[in-house]
Amino acid sequence: MAKLMEDEVFMAFTTYAVIVVLKMLLMAPLTVFYRITRGAFANVEDVARKPAEEKKKLLRNHEDVERVRRCHQNDIETIIPFVLIGLLYALTGPALTAALLHFRIFAGSRICHSIAYLCCLPQPSRGLSWMAGMLVNFSMAYSVLTTVLYL
Amino acid sequence: MAKLMEDEVFMAFTTYAVIVVLKMLLMAPLTVFYRITRGAFANVEDVARKPAEEKKKLLRNHEDVERVRRCHQNDIETIIPFVLIGLLYALTGPALTAALLHFRIFAGSRICHSIAYLCCLPQPSRGLSWMAGMLVNFSMAYSVLTTVLYL
Amino acid sequence: MAKLMEDEVFMAFTTYAVIVVLKMLLMAPLTVFYRITRGAFANVEDVARKPAEEKKKLLRNHEDVERVRRCHQNDIETIIPFVLIGLLYALTGPALTAALLHFRIFAGSRICHSIAYLCCLPQPSRGLSWMAGMLVNFSMAYSVLTTVLYL
Repeated sequence: MAKLMEDEVFMAFTTYAVIVVLKMLLMAPLTVFYRITRGAFANVEDVARKPAEEKKKLLRNHEDVERVRRCHQNDIETIIPFVLIGLLYALTGPALTAALLHFRIFAGSRICHSIAYLCCLPQPSRGLSWMAGMLVNFSMAYSVLTTVLYL
Repeated sequence: MAKLMEDEVFMAFTTYAVIVVLKMLLMAPLTVFYRITRGAFANVEDVARKPAEEKKKLLRNHEDVERVRRCHQNDIETIIPFVLIGLLYALTGPALTAALLHFRIFAGSRICHSIAYLCCLPQPSRGLSWMAGMLVNFSMAYSVLTTVLYL
Repeated sequence: MAKLMEDEVFMAFTTYAVIVVLKMLLMAPLTVFYRITRGAFANVEDVARKPAEEKKKLLRNHEDVERVRRCHQNDIETIIPFVLIGLLYALTGPALTAALLHFRIFAGSRICHSIAYLCCLPQPSRGLSWMAGMLVNFSMAYSVLTTVLYL
């Protein structure tokens, strides 16, 4: 089993996969932070200790919270497919330089995407960084399907 | 490492997993397409270049966009578990015919599900195709747990 | 290939991963159950057979349905990263006792989280069980990155 982790491509995949998943995980505490500082909660039990007249006001949506949640959702829609396709791609034994290029562009594009989303940078910064990540996913999927096709 | 990709069950899993993940990924550009053609955006920066009086009108929900997003969300809730459980299932060394049956029914059911969702086909077309995919997931999970159980 | 499934750590990972993914999958039929019993649907075709005057009333949000959906979404945001990071963690060959501790705390925390969420238990029961799961994810990610780092 340890042999997988001696392969350079698989080690590179492991490193970048964990980094992007960590980035995605950090959106959750960030949502909690915005919910508390902006005073915008989703569940009755979260505002149970507040005075009665405040309770209703705190159960609302706030644009800052919704923005982090959209950013989180976009991560789920892009990063999880990257890890799933990337795992199979790394197992097909691609060239190390090609694999590293894919993984590095993806990790960079997702970090740019989150900064562009959370800081409301003007378009097309967010659109382009999202597209770079999607293209990496499609390129890896194409590479896997041309190497292994068993219908 | 290349040995995994010489196993027929694992090759079949790889092929079908990449196909269904690709199908899921395509929901994202489709959402962008509907957002632009229907004029329904979520972020202020996406409508920055539009004239001021139009801006507010474009920051809205549109039923067509919401429908693609619900379809995408259902893919996330069903296809990602398929790839995760399917990977472990393929590693337990099932019979090739049984494995292919699982993978083919799942891929077919998800393509039917998306068509039924996006074309608003009358029920129970969407419900039944969703259920077929779920049953494949439960069947693979049962097969894995009866082969490997280490609590 | 069968060798992976002879490794005790990988067998333990497989067992707990399938259990938590099954728990996540069960949220979907639960949503269907609440949608039907509460009479709160999202799609026009789901209420096609109802009398015309009822149709509009049934296309609405209901707090109980939204609560299950938030619980499901939280599972997606926490359980899927667990399976992805956990797979790579299991492949780095950790000690069996350390690995079992991670997997057991995670599975327990997510079951507690779902009960706390769906039964509206007073805080901080939900918050603490969520945090336990997140800490397991961060701990496994840290362990993987210190063992394998190939940038």
